[in-house]
Amino acid sequence: MIRVSIVGATGYTGGELLRYLIRHPDVKLMHLTSENFAGQPIYALHKFLKGRCALICEKLNPGAIAKDSDVVFLGLPHGASAKTAAALLAKGVKVIDLSADFRLLSLASYTKWYGTHPTPKLLKDAVYGLPERYRAEIRNAKLIAAPGCYSTTSILAGLPLMANGLLGAGPIIVDAKSGVSGAGRKVEATYLYSEANESMMAYGLKGHRHHPEILQEWYRAAKDAKKKANAELIFVPHLVPMNRGIFATLYAPLAKRMTIEALRELYVSYYIREPFVTVLGPNESPESKGVAYTNHCQIGVSMDPSGQRAVIMAVTDNLGKGASGQAIQCMNLMFGLDETVGLL
Amino acid sequence: MIRVSIVGATGYTGGELLRYLIRHPDVKLMHLTSENFAGQPIYALHKFLKGRCALICEKLNPGAIAKDSDVVFLGLPHGASAKTAAALLAKGVKVIDLSADFRLLSLASYTKWYGTHPTPKLLKDAVYGLPERYRAEIRNAKLIAAPGCYSTTSILAGLPLMANGLLGAGPIIVDAKSGVSGAGRKVEATYLYSEANESMMAYGLKGHRHHPEILQEWYRAAKDAKKKANAELIFVPHLVPMNRGIFATLYAPLAKRMTIEALRELYVSYYIREPFVTVLGPNESPESKGVAYTNHCQIGVSMDPSGQRAVIMAVTDNLGKGASGQAIQCMNLMFGLDETVGLL
Amino acid sequence: MIRVSIVGATGYTGGELLRYLIRHPDVKLMHLTSENFAGQPIYALHKFLKGRCALICEKLNPGAIAKDSDVVFLGLPHGASAKTAAALLAKGVKVIDLSADFRLLSLASYTKWYGTHPTPKLLKDAVYGLPERYRAEIRNAKLIAAPGCYSTTSILAGLPLMANGLLGAGPIIVDAKSGVSGAGRKVEATYLYSEANESMMAYGLKGHRHHPEILQEWYRAAKDAKKKANAELIFVPHLVPMNRGIFATLYAPLAKRMTIEALRELYVSYYIREPFVTVLGPNESPESKGVAYTNHCQIGVSMDPSGQRAVIMAVTDNLGKGASGQAIQCMNLMFGLDETVGLL
Amino acid sequence: MIRVSIVGATGYTGGELLRYLIRHPDVKLMHLTSENFAGQPIYALHKFLKGRCALICEKLNPGAIAKDSDVVFLGLPHGASAKTAAALLAKGVKVIDLSADFRLLSLASYTKWYGTHPTPKLLKDAVYGLPERYRAEIRNAKLIAAPGCYSTTSILAGLPLMANGLLGAGPIIVDAKSGVSGAGRKVEATYLYSEANESMMAYGLKGHRHHPEILQEWYRAAKDAKKKANAELIFVPHLVPMNRGIFATLYAPLAKRMTIEALRELYVSYYIREPFVTVLGPNESPESKGVAYTNHCQIGVSMDPSGQRAVIMAVTDNLGKGASGQAIQCMNLMFGLDETVGLL
Repeated sequence: MIRVSIVGATGYTGGELLRYLIRHPDVKLMHLTSENFAGQPIYALHKFLKGRCALICEKLNPGAIAKDSDVVFLGLPHGASAKTAAALLAKGVKVIDLSADFRLLSLASYTKWYGTHPTPKLLKDAVYGLPERYRAEIRNAKLIAAPGCYSTTSILAGLPLMANGLLGAGPIIVDAKSGVSGAGRKVEATYLYSEANESMMAYGLKGHRHHPEILQEWYRAAKDAKKKANAELIFVPHLVPMNRGIFATLYAPLAKRMTIEALRELYVSYYIREPFVTVLGPNESPESKGVAYTNHCQIGVSMDPSGQRAVIMAVTDNLGKGASGQAIQCMNLMFGLDETVGLL
Repeated sequence: MIRVSIVGATGYTGGELLRYLIRHPDVKLMHLTSENFAGQPIYALHKFLKGRCALICEKLNPGAIAKDSDVVFLGLPHGASAKTAAALLAKGVKVIDLSADFRLLSLASYTKWYGTHPTPKLLKDAVYGLPERYRAEIRNAKLIAAPGCYSTTSILAGLPLMANGLLGAGPIIVDAKSGVSGAGRKVEATYLYSEANESMMAYGLKGHRHHPEILQEWYRAAKDAKKKANAELIFVPHLVPMNRGIFATLYAPLAKRMTIEALRELYVSYYIREPFVTVLGPNESPESKGVAYTNHCQIGVSMDPSGQRAVIMAVTDNLGKGASGQAIQCMNLMFGLDETVGLL
Repeated sequence: MIRVSIVGATGYTGGELLRYLIRHPDVKLMHLTSENFAGQPIYALHKFLKGRCALICEKLNPGAIAKDSDVVFLGLPHGASAKTAAALLAKGVKVIDLSADFRLLSLASYTKWYGTHPTPKLLKDAVYGLPERYRAEIRNAKLIAAPGCYSTTSILAGLPLMANGLLGAGPIIVDAKSGVSGAGRKVEATYLYSEANESMMAYGLKGHRHHPEILQEWYRAAKDAKKKANAELIFVPHLVPMNRGIFATLYAPLAKRMTIEALRELYVSYYIREPFVTVLGPNESPESKGVAYTNHCQIGVSMDPSGQRAVIMAVTDNLGKGASGQAIQCMNLMFGLDETVGLL
Repeated sequence: MIRVSIVGATGYTGGELLRYLIRHPDVKLMHLTSENFAGQPIYALHKFLKGRCALICEKLNPGAIAKDSDVVFLGLPHGASAKTAAALLAKGVKVIDLSADFRLLSLASYTKWYGTHPTPKLLKDAVYGLPERYRAEIRNAKLIAAPGCYSTTSILAGLPLMANGLLGAGPIIVDAKSGVSGAGRKVEATYLYSEANESMMAYGLKGHRHHPEILQEWYRAAKDAKKKANAELIFVPHLVPMNRGIFATLYAPLAKRMTIEALRELYVSYYIREPFVTVLGPNESPESKGVAYTNHCQIGVSMDPSGQRAVIMAVTDNLGKGASGQAIQCMNLMFGLDETVGLL
């Protein structure tokens, strides 16, 4: 049994980790931490755990956790996360970090978007937790930087274009739509039911933190395939009145005129062996409900009538493949399990 | 008093016309028609009319309607609408058509998207019912082609770019999101609550009927301003789980580098005298709830950091400025009223 | 023109007052106050006011308001409201209070549910703002206690039973369901979109403040009709995932066996002259959307097959007839206007 | 491996059966039938199965199914279901029927609510599929009548009262609220998104089919415990804008004055060994999201201040414990498995 703890277990990603882990056949839950709710049973925060998980939230104590945990998921804000990761890694525990602290390879970029990095030396040890790209590295990693929901969805939507050198001149546009749980359990007026329901808005119009993360991974994919990557991305996130789901619509100029069938075939080939990525039929849109409560990504391939612009649509559950599901997929790989265990 | 009838009053646009008309100080409702619900009180279909409107649905009889109506709103499917318009116009009644029958100037284009036009000779008499462009013509019109919801929102989002000749090379992208009532009261599985709720999808991926309508109006605006219009539009509509609201995000290449302040200033100037179009602050996103149950359009102006790409966001209520509200705005103009009467 | 100010204008009831007042033909808006948002334009809080209302929020200054206001709506928390009411009344301004401060006739009851009353001497001057019961008194009132949403809906559902002495032995049960805006703009975790959406819960299980208010008004109605009122009410409120709407289902034992037609006839007779209360057909349920964005109440009358239990269903918009709409209805009466002005 | 087929697999209960069965470790899926979608892959109807289940819908052929199935779930309309059950049982296959055909013990009652029963002789062989009451019988059953969602939730809410003889004089009231998927995938105007969203209504006001089913099971529980059962139930179902979830509020007169702690203790004792029923703290309301996508029922116990009226609240997922989850719980029992397999 893998002995698992969760630091910061009371947020939405913590709850979704627990939804998967309580039925994972190879996992034993050890510690759940919460600074605000220490002493309370976890089911007081996640009502679906009532009668199913009796653990009590504890204050974070890395030493205590390290004693009997093989791996720890971190559901902390950035900054705090890096420090805790360092403490746990120093004691020989594997860490899967769901914050942004280890996602960006470039320290300069991290500093620009998030401020001073508390543990910059750890950056080189982290593996970006996207199995579709870094499966081998994840198997041997001690520190995983689990990608965010917008990033996972956008990156997966674009990878086959990058790896095949298909991009023409001009910017790629990602118009992304997110359900409200993507913002976490932030008690702010914007996320009140009566504000968010029956409404839509864009946000992050002066720049969004997932922008450099998406570009980074597209570049790396292009570089690995010895292709040129496009230098420009316009990323506009929108808030949509639903609990779960990311729907990303990607508009990309193509380097050459293609048929939709040929374009779709490249996507099918790229993802043919992936257990959690499915490519739909030509001109078929995914529906976000098709991946709700799962670790799957579904991708639809369409095209501008001119044959020179791809329109790619990808959906994930922001709490599944966009966060907690994917983190568990990484855990499975790190511990030599079939990566689908507990995720079907 | 303007004597008003509605043909096809039981749909959502019919309901919204009635919501406005029952409190319009200069209107007297005469006839409401419905082929499926003739004989039933209109409040059986629109529950909010219970105790507020006692009219009974009648079968359509253009002769009877023409006898005591000054103007008729048509809420019929395309094709049927044109025939009824012809019959009513022949008897001297003014017509405001909410279908697509008179929106496209080009008969070829109509034929491609909708099939054979029943009354092609009437096309030249119709005025496109967008007061922000054709206020003078609407005042004198006998036949109004009321624009659709996607078209109104997209066109308004782009007009200042077209009229100022600001477009650079490359396609304009409109990523549009619509609430479910935009589809009308279609009893189809796609629009069931349990299908549409908690989900998002794109549709119309092989081409959408509003595509030529948007381009037509952008071209005319550019031409009137003696500017060149961009030849390419990628329009992708999405279904969003809310009752009302269109949110259109427009991505446009600019002919020259601009500041966001300068770009926004052009928008403010263009719409400064419009009672129903409001331009928000720089990088401020509109929220669709901000125009729900109104005839207003709110526009947000943003920009890619490169300064070479505009990101314009516009919202309307698809049943308000996107349909029935705007139709009443046209009626007010046709009868010499202040165009805001009954719409505030 | 009636010169109107709103104290505490940034909440949901303030917003709905403005929705109605900006199109009210006899009203001139003077002051809007907010302690938290003083200096900001009101449209920053209520987005639909952008381009429609240019007023800036001020800090509360009763003296300044009294100088040029004929009537002031109070949208303050209880306690604070009474003090402000006293200050304004002392300067000769009429007050319509939307808080609970003047709803309960019994000081003891107020103390039990809300704590010490700041201005107990004013209690006797307040008129309960339910026009269906106190129309004459409202016309002459200087201080109106506008009823809450649960109370209005429940009271209207039960009045014909009380006034006709129809109640048998045993408790009346009101199972009430409210949209989320009924809780006001409280920034608390319970009201977050991701918590409230796709869920339902009961609350107030240890007792709810509207309980004594409902009973008080039922008793008064019975007493005025020289009938006995039932001594027992079980009131259980529930939270439902929708923005607006109260749906109250009332279960009442009848004093005698009746037909549903006879029971419904009593309801029709009782409300026959009321402009904002409509009784539906036998066994017809109201739908809360039928009164959304209106000042109407719709009532459905049904019955247990035994003929000895009434099942009455009533719907209001919690921000309309349940709060701001009704407050304006009272204002119309206080100033000698037709009570429906601005509310159709 | 248990070889499992589903007849009528394209509805919502069919989809939910598949959600559980594709991850059930002891199940092999054999046949899925659909009269309307024969020849199509099941993932065309249930999008979440794309890439996860390759089965093609077949026309119903009981002989073919019987050849290689150990158990068949029936998701057919009543009437049709009984006939198919008979054909399959005759060939030695076990049947779990999700329709109403075998739920009522009384043929007269069935005839009143559903019409002529096609196979009345089978009634005596059916076991009511509520493990909390009939665990032993289910283990040996060949034909299971899986209870409906309203029934399961209401029955579980009331059982401890019945089994302890706690009911006083007067009717029990069940005010039940259901998410829209409870109605199945009916393509009717009532269930359109734009009709059901942002609205609430009651229905079935002239009598509802679950009424006799609830009473039957309460009577049997009282009789088995040698207690008297109350003779009167008022059951009013309501439609609530959410996909999933039943919230039942039960109001019951008590035979004697009790403390809430004593009442709750009886509930805790009654369900103490049940893996899928959890009793919350005193005066704690369940939340329907707490059981969404699970086979659990959560029950809250409250009380009128008089101490003479119980207010019991129960929630289930109408597709989980209210239908498909419970049917699989029965299957587990029928095949000697731990009843929680595949349901955690």
